[in-house]
Amino acid sequence: MKFATIITIGDELLIGQTIDTNSAWMASKLNTIGISIKRRIAVSDQWKEIWSALDEESKQADIILITGGLGPTSDDITKTLLARYFNGELIVNQEALDNVIDIFTHKLKRPLLERNLKQAEVPSTCKVIPNKRGTAPGMWFDQNEKIFVSMPGVPHEMKGMMEDYVIPHIQKRFELTPILHRTLLTAGIGESFLAELLISFEAHLPSEIKIAYLPNYGMVRIRLTNADGRAQEKLDACFENLKILVKDYLVVDRDISMQEYVAEQLLASKKTLAIAESCTGGYISHLITSIPGSSRFYLGGITSYANDVKENILNVPKSILLEKGAVSEEVAQKMAEGARLKTGADYGISTTGIMGPDGGSVEKPVGMVCMGFSSKDKTISAVFQFRFDRKRNIELAAIHALDFLRKNMG
Amino acid sequence: MKFATIITIGDELLIGQTIDTNSAWMASKLNTIGISIKRRIAVSDQWKEIWSALDEESKQADIILITGGLGPTSDDITKTLLARYFNGELIVNQEALDNVIDIFTHKLKRPLLERNLKQAEVPSTCKVIPNKRGTAPGMWFDQNEKIFVSMPGVPHEMKGMMEDYVIPHIQKRFELTPILHRTLLTAGIGESFLAELLISFEAHLPSEIKIAYLPNYGMVRIRLTNADGRAQEKLDACFENLKILVKDYLVVDRDISMQEYVAEQLLASKKTLAIAESCTGGYISHLITSIPGSSRFYLGGITSYANDVKENILNVPKSILLEKGAVSEEVAQKMAEGARLKTGADYGISTTGIMGPDGGSVEKPVGMVCMGFSSKDKTISAVFQFRFDRKRNIELAAIHALDFLRKNMG
Repeated sequence: MKFATIITIGDELLIGQTIDTNSAWMASKLNTIGISIKRRIAVSDQWKEIWSALDEESKQADIILITGGLGPTSDDITKTLLARYFNGELIVNQEALDNVIDIFTHKLKRPLLERNLKQAEVPSTCKVIPNKRGTAPGMWFDQNEKIFVSMPGVPHEMKGMMEDYVIPHIQKRFELTPILHRTLLTAGIGESFLAELLISFEAHLPSEIKIAYLPNYGMVRIRLTNADGRAQEKLDACFENLKILVKDYLVVDRDISMQEYVAEQLLASKKTLAIAESCTGGYISHLITSIPGSSRFYLGGITSYANDVKENILNVPKSILLEKGAVSEEVAQKMAEGARLKTGADYGISTTGIMGPDGGSVEKPVGMVCMGFSSKDKTISAVFQFRFDRKRNIELAAIHALDFLRKNMG
Repeated sequence: MKFATIITIGDELLIGQTIDTNSAWMASKLNTIGISIKRRIAVSDQWKEIWSALDEESKQADIILITGGLGPTSDDITKTLLARYFNGELIVNQEALDNVIDIFTHKLKRPLLERNLKQAEVPSTCKVIPNKRGTAPGMWFDQNEKIFVSMPGVPHEMKGMMEDYVIPHIQKRFELTPILHRTLLTAGIGESFLAELLISFEAHLPSEIKIAYLPNYGMVRIRLTNADGRAQEKLDACFENLKILVKDYLVVDRDISMQEYVAEQLLASKKTLAIAESCTGGYISHLITSIPGSSRFYLGGITSYANDVKENILNVPKSILLEKGAVSEEVAQKMAEGARLKTGADYGISTTGIMGPDGGSVEKPVGMVCMGFSSKDKTISAVFQFRFDRKRNIELAAIHALDFLRKNMG
């Protein structure tokens, strides 16, 4: 088994101005090809910190992936440090220089500055990794049987390099056995209850197979892992057992999101969807439209924050709004129906609720959300109570609305 | 200066199934009270890894914050390990037990399982940190002049503990000098060009003041930091100079987001907003409605994914859709106008474009986005070209649409 460490460099990570989304993506890619991630570390833009992280991590890992600190400004020192660390000097790389010139001349159409030309300098002791999406080249060092890779912190640049160069070159360089995972998604049951259901299953798992519970948005994913990539059949057999045990709560037996699953079902059944959102404010629509090709089943949505919009665009009767209030099952039903009829979609779903921090009452507390579903056959609703902050209440309401759709659609 | 390390525990972090948002939040909170974050580390749910991380990090940091691995299932070993590490044994804490019972009886209304009761066990050598939002108590260890704090990985539970207990107790325990930051947000200029503009400014900065460029969504934040909390005046003076130098690109001289700034402006001018989104699919609406109190200025939005929705709800004339195509400045203008007129808002904004990966052509490539702005005085549009993947194109288009609003509103 080969081990990797991910080192992310940047003060912005340590003062909390930036959330590190790179590491999770990199970890998942490396995992797929059979590399286990030992640790993930974030250090500041300081010479001593970076240097000692390289020293320490290379004691334990075979592959050290570094992101960040390659920008054109004075706080970026990674490249100078790497030149020194690997006993080289900074030299201009012609291919990287051509790339910088091309980007400024043809894509950005801006004058080229001295500091941008410096982007084409690399340590003389590295192999250059081309950057098709930006000006900073990546660097590959092979030293004492260990690989060090330095990439920009900009996510889409890093991703391009990983996919086009780093992953294939690591696969060439090491003999790897893939790590096997099988994951399923459950809804409507808590982590403790699932674990209770699976006591005997866990007790009888072969020792090389690990189980993990991953709760998120009120749903729980269960993952079985086998680090010995030769035992696919054994893992599959355990996974089939697991599926039977959790069948009442099973959403899907693959590691996809609720929205991806709903999208698949809509496409497969050739049905279309429209969404009327009040309290979720466009978030469900965003989840759906983040899926490539969603225009094939998603017609559109109405974010009806104001009551007038509920009335005028979604045709929710004023009398119901006045009598029952905007946050009510009756309004949720009319909203879902309105979205469906107004767009001509097969299904309409809706949310209306109180997300906080203000606006709650004893009768309708913060976190109360009414959801509607409408098809030509039925229009129904349900009430949920979430107990968290605004951001999390929005996320939970969105996922539960999609689950409500999943359960009720054809 | 006191130093902290954040250790996050969990296999899910190392196989890339979970993005760590906790660390950034914690770092930002600690920074505000004058604690510098040395490193952030993620390790797996393995005894050896956690143990050696505690050993190593406590050599360099004064405060070691640990999250994760406190759940009720078998893969959670943090508590057992901490009991051993700090020479204690697991004992039931009455307050934590009452909390578990209360949550199950009154909030979840579910039967209480043996494994849930175990949540109330803590190492005998710790002080218990109450968890108002969940069943797992936090733990505070004070040993050899160093503080170790263990909290659940569930973000809202961790945040509650940090705010109610950990931050105030750290402030009591250490004498701290706040770290001063001042941050401004620019738009419409790249990182290199900003740096070029600020060469002389950087050269003359007092040695204790650091500058950092934080590019994000095509905008750049510039941050000045002074770790010596007594020099507020010096920092302020530098910051005022900086503001003058970047005045042509300055959005706001505080560390807030584009959407927060736009929200402030709308509230201050008592104007209302409506949004018509095609390619951004509800994301702008989500950004706006994530702000508490947004219902005071945001009336609603229409996500018009299908052309019929553009025509029927936003009243975009069919002839324009046919002649110019859905992705065109003419359609963007009609959409913005339609959103405004349909909802009665003061301002309407819109997006229509091609987000990828498919759907591009030579004339209208992936990443092309038309934006519209409409008020009673004018209806205008602009075209942008983004060059990234779907997710990032959506994010960039949304922020640029808000910037387009900012520039054009009263």
